[in-house]
Amino acid sequence: MTVRPAPLPDRTAVPADRPTPIPTRWVGPIRISGNAASGEIHVPLATYETPLWPSVARGAGLSRLVADGIKVTLVDERMTRSVLLEAPDAETAYAAARAIHDRTEELRRLTRRSSRFAELLGIRHEITGPLLFVRFEFATGDAAGHNMATLAADLLLAHLLQHVPGLAYGSVSGNYCTDKKATAINGILGRGKNATAEILVPRSLVAGRLRTTAARIARLNVHKNLVGTLLAGGVRSANAHYANMLLAVYLATGQDAANIVEGSQGITYATDRGGDLYFSCTLPNLVVGTVGNGKHLPAVEAALTRLGCRDERPTGQNARRLAAITAATVLCGELSLMAAQTNPGELMRTHTRIERASGDRHEH
Amino acid sequence: MTVRPAPLPDRTAVPADRPTPIPTRWVGPIRISGNAASGEIHVPLATYETPLWPSVARGAGLSRLVADGIKVTLVDERMTRSVLLEAPDAETAYAAARAIHDRTEELRRLTRRSSRFAELLGIRHEITGPLLFVRFEFATGDAAGHNMATLAADLLLAHLLQHVPGLAYGSVSGNYCTDKKATAINGILGRGKNATAEILVPRSLVAGRLRTTAARIARLNVHKNLVGTLLAGGVRSANAHYANMLLAVYLATGQDAANIVEGSQGITYATDRGGDLYFSCTLPNLVVGTVGNGKHLPAVEAALTRLGCRDERPTGQNARRLAAITAATVLCGELSLMAAQTNPGELMRTHTRIERASGDRHEH
Amino acid sequence: MTVRPAPLPDRTAVPADRPTPIPTRWVGPIRISGNAASGEIHVPLATYETPLWPSVARGAGLSRLVADGIKVTLVDERMTRSVLLEAPDAETAYAAARAIHDRTEELRRLTRRSSRFAELLGIRHEITGPLLFVRFEFATGDAAGHNMATLAADLLLAHLLQHVPGLAYGSVSGNYCTDKKATAINGILGRGKNATAEILVPRSLVAGRLRTTAARIARLNVHKNLVGTLLAGGVRSANAHYANMLLAVYLATGQDAANIVEGSQGITYATDRGGDLYFSCTLPNLVVGTVGNGKHLPAVEAALTRLGCRDERPTGQNARRLAAITAATVLCGELSLMAAQTNPGELMRTHTRIERASGDRHEH
Amino acid sequence: MTVRPAPLPDRTAVPADRPTPIPTRWVGPIRISGNAASGEIHVPLATYETPLWPSVARGAGLSRLVADGIKVTLVDERMTRSVLLEAPDAETAYAAARAIHDRTEELRRLTRRSSRFAELLGIRHEITGPLLFVRFEFATGDAAGHNMATLAADLLLAHLLQHVPGLAYGSVSGNYCTDKKATAINGILGRGKNATAEILVPRSLVAGRLRTTAARIARLNVHKNLVGTLLAGGVRSANAHYANMLLAVYLATGQDAANIVEGSQGITYATDRGGDLYFSCTLPNLVVGTVGNGKHLPAVEAALTRLGCRDERPTGQNARRLAAITAATVLCGELSLMAAQTNPGELMRTHTRIERASGDRHEH
Repeated sequence: MTVRPAPLPDRTAVPADRPTPIPTRWVGPIRISGNAASGEIHVPLATYETPLWPSVARGAGLSRLVADGIKVTLVDERMTRSVLLEAPDAETAYAAARAIHDRTEELRRLTRRSSRFAELLGIRHEITGPLLFVRFEFATGDAAGHNMATLAADLLLAHLLQHVPGLAYGSVSGNYCTDKKATAINGILGRGKNATAEILVPRSLVAGRLRTTAARIARLNVHKNLVGTLLAGGVRSANAHYANMLLAVYLATGQDAANIVEGSQGITYATDRGGDLYFSCTLPNLVVGTVGNGKHLPAVEAALTRLGCRDERPTGQNARRLAAITAATVLCGELSLMAAQTNPGELMRTHTRIERASGDRHEH
Repeated sequence: MTVRPAPLPDRTAVPADRPTPIPTRWVGPIRISGNAASGEIHVPLATYETPLWPSVARGAGLSRLVADGIKVTLVDERMTRSVLLEAPDAETAYAAARAIHDRTEELRRLTRRSSRFAELLGIRHEITGPLLFVRFEFATGDAAGHNMATLAADLLLAHLLQHVPGLAYGSVSGNYCTDKKATAINGILGRGKNATAEILVPRSLVAGRLRTTAARIARLNVHKNLVGTLLAGGVRSANAHYANMLLAVYLATGQDAANIVEGSQGITYATDRGGDLYFSCTLPNLVVGTVGNGKHLPAVEAALTRLGCRDERPTGQNARRLAAITAATVLCGELSLMAAQTNPGELMRTHTRIERASGDRHEH
Repeated sequence: MTVRPAPLPDRTAVPADRPTPIPTRWVGPIRISGNAASGEIHVPLATYETPLWPSVARGAGLSRLVADGIKVTLVDERMTRSVLLEAPDAETAYAAARAIHDRTEELRRLTRRSSRFAELLGIRHEITGPLLFVRFEFATGDAAGHNMATLAADLLLAHLLQHVPGLAYGSVSGNYCTDKKATAINGILGRGKNATAEILVPRSLVAGRLRTTAARIARLNVHKNLVGTLLAGGVRSANAHYANMLLAVYLATGQDAANIVEGSQGITYATDRGGDLYFSCTLPNLVVGTVGNGKHLPAVEAALTRLGCRDERPTGQNARRLAAITAATVLCGELSLMAAQTNPGELMRTHTRIERASGDRHEH
Repeated sequence: MTVRPAPLPDRTAVPADRPTPIPTRWVGPIRISGNAASGEIHVPLATYETPLWPSVARGAGLSRLVADGIKVTLVDERMTRSVLLEAPDAETAYAAARAIHDRTEELRRLTRRSSRFAELLGIRHEITGPLLFVRFEFATGDAAGHNMATLAADLLLAHLLQHVPGLAYGSVSGNYCTDKKATAINGILGRGKNATAEILVPRSLVAGRLRTTAARIARLNVHKNLVGTLLAGGVRSANAHYANMLLAVYLATGQDAANIVEGSQGITYATDRGGDLYFSCTLPNLVVGTVGNGKHLPAVEAALTRLGCRDERPTGQNARRLAAITAATVLCGELSLMAAQTNPGELMRTHTRIERASGDRHEH
């Protein structure tokens, strides 16, 4: 695909619509184990930030030198949508909240009717003055579930307005969900997959491959990711650059990449275990799907198929596999950058070298 | 460009690297005025979430019915990088902080040597125990400035380690910058462009085009964007979906799209002015550039050229123009969605209709 | 009680220990209705900030002019303690978390043995790398329940360490509780009482007593409490000065007043209802008790008795009554200050007049 | 002072107003060094939570066994007040913001006229839509400065409304100050004193006095204070219980104790230095004063005098001394509790023993 810039751009004309090609490289393979995926898996990274490729590749190379590679544990999954209802006062809102919980079984049945994959897992609410926020949690099969959750919430909302006295329509989304905003609620109550990727790197590999020590990485993690982010006023986030890896995997696999906003709220934790490095990345709000919106495009289908995320599996297993692969990819890039930052000047030198090699033009 | 999924994917082989094509449409034109751009401008939106196109188009159509269209005011710009230094104790860290501020002129000169576009605008620091975080603020011309800031910070850091007694290297980035994380510091101290897009929509257009009233939009904004996000535990964020528009413009114009994480921390403010709707979107952390990494790709150059962001202008003006266009685009999509959410069921109906029309396969 | 400053303070000697007398005034009565208290009730305010007295008194006076006065709705109550457990990896932590939930009944029984008032209401957990945070929620009768929760958590923790494989002791409190820190978790999951106080003030009283309009108060609330706090980087907080009223009631009634840190995270919500003012204060993390630590001191017993919070009632009702009274007091002071701030100069004039009248020496 | 509960409380009568006596003990002395106070100093702790006394006493005892004791470094001081101004649009707000900064000298002069101690140190602003928040920073001598800052802000606000075109009164406080709310802005921009207290405890004392090791305290600090608070959704806070010590010192010294809300947002940092323990408490938002509101009460004057905070010193030195003493007291209590929590069961055992010894009646 070639895009030729118009020699004389006529800005009044409606421009032609061509897909935007994002540079993409398959990196790896990453050795992965755990409760959602295992094996050696190449991952596609679609990004303008090409230094990300060798960075993730370094982590992937390391994973293949460790017996279990990167172990990913999925501990939760749910998609959410919060509706907003308005009552005349808090007393009425409270009565309504109890009535809604009493109707849980009914709402469960309604949800099932909205989609064959949707299932209502739970309901939480919060009252502020006369406002009633109700947060529905759904299982959504292999879909990320944005639309499935909205469709179900729409039905549930209409049903509640009809059957619970004292309520008026507020909004089909009350930002208490929370979609594509960095908040605390998703990590605390759950939204998307909750996954931890972890690796135990022997001392010799920390020295030979990462040119550092476990103690220095652990120390940097406390100073930069924990204390530094805290001082910057971050919320539920302590990492160097999850957003970069998430964006690259999301774009290559047809995800709604704006979900990196909350997806990148994760916690890197590292300790020195007698010279060996324990390193983990926990992503409590990882929104991914292998079917649904955007997934039918040929490039996306190809990528998902190659990742083994379009195989015949029990419902939900393909999406879980993709979550595990994504979390492992995040760990590869995070570990590589953290190691680099323990050494003065290494980050910039590497960046410059890579960008020169790739013929990339620099801004400086 | 056609990608054919391999009939039998051989997962052990290294996959071929092809760019990932992101569906892109030019929407508009948007009528824009203000201190950084003016005129009627089409904007490219690269996204898998195709319902975004008509949503932004509705806002753009509205802008053309208002005399000044969407007015964008840029009020600040700077790129930042924080370095982390370690002292033996807080007393030494404090002495070092004062010594660093005393050397401001020297650091200014050093910065200029690192790049012809980089200029040191300010230095802030924070001490926690023996840790000294120093946040450098730079002007970076038309570049977003990630690399320029890192390169300069690298030099400044090396210089400080050599000349200020008592300090040891901590990290070239202490997460006090803050890049690609949602924190409070960027909005408070500034990072990227700080822009407000605003429009005053006459009552008749609010009714005719948006099918709602100013009072209902203002009320929804308080309930959903302000109260809802607050209850969810958000930080410095009150909007419905800035992340969607930002991602789409960023991808189409070669930006480092992971910056939507902090970029989407913005505030929608709406009031009913006697039936007319005042509606504004403030984006305090908008990181964009028109030169630098990723900007030389043909599709990106074409898009930037068409946007008028590659014209001969004083340094920085092209990037400011892009910031203004981006902020206006955010307003278009935000206003459209907010209006839709004031009406029960409208959001889902529109979504479904659009996706069916586009032949999109649904997850439900 | 008179304290005479030593004429020549001998700083080497151990000083004598005398109680610190905090100026206290009974203000009101406040007219209160709702599901936890009703009637006209005077409240004691112990504070060095004496302008608080007339401020709360103004709100109280207003409450007596409205039929239902201030209506307080209690919607939840629980005390929490989070323990921290360490596993070798996330996989083990996840297995342990499931084992803990499987033992819920057993843990319930254990809790009952720790105190005749403690009851285990729920368990939530979060895994980060190899760390397992377990948050226990308890009913604690009329006690605030700090000690009761810690004692129970201690027993539960010892039990889990003995019976769930793979876990090591981390801490009896993992700051995931959260006690005396401003976080998002308490509001989202619940801690202490969750109460909303609300009042509907007729237009004539808004004008006559508060010298303002409903529209101006509603507008100020959006600008100051919602937008202003948001821009300051607040978390789950939108009010003018809950902390002042909470501190004064807490000190006068023997509460652990450091709980104002999270207690003051509340949301003021105000709307103009056709010229009448709907005004509410929601306090989702209100920690109060009428028995337990500090409550046996004569002054405290006298205050609680006079408040009707030492009457013979079903377990928990006295504490709920105190919560309702506290929330109503918060509303009185909040409404009064918000009204004052709609008028330029009023706040300072009032402050100065009051402090002069009380013979208070000023710093300026 | 004896308070006899009325045998039959007549709740309709206005109750008598007697000061509330808070149990107070002078603990220490604490050995303190640094740039604001030095010597061995007893501190008064007014609190219902009497186990705090032996806890702080343990830390104080430790300080006397280390050469420099607890070193406190004050690195900044300022009191702030933010006013809110309303413009018709962002463009006007931006023009106004520049006009305000251009008038800095004029505003400085005005400030000096408002009080002989007040000095305008800086001005920061933020624009959101048509709203202009202006944050004034003042030096306020030995006063905490709430009233001095409000008085000055009142004058400055009136002046700006008169001289800067396009602005209307919003509020004398826009919550962007921020007083008595937990936000990020105070730590980032400064409010109150910014102080770090630190101590280096030899390995033998860590073992003998604290019954633990440096490694275990450092590890607990990362897990509980950093990771635990982060997961709870805290903002700029990482400590075990600063609020307890702050409250007790604030009450005993006549401070506006509601300032513990932001004062308790501080960071504990601990490392193992070859078996010795480096332990620090950083309090970036410590609001204290030795003159002004509440400070003329006899008990308060006695306490301040005994603390050496009413001596003849250059303006500001008495308040700085009090800040240093407060920070050192916080460290004593924090270190003691952290040490206790490294040992299973120790916290509860100690609590129970102390309360039994003091004849305190328990809730369990």
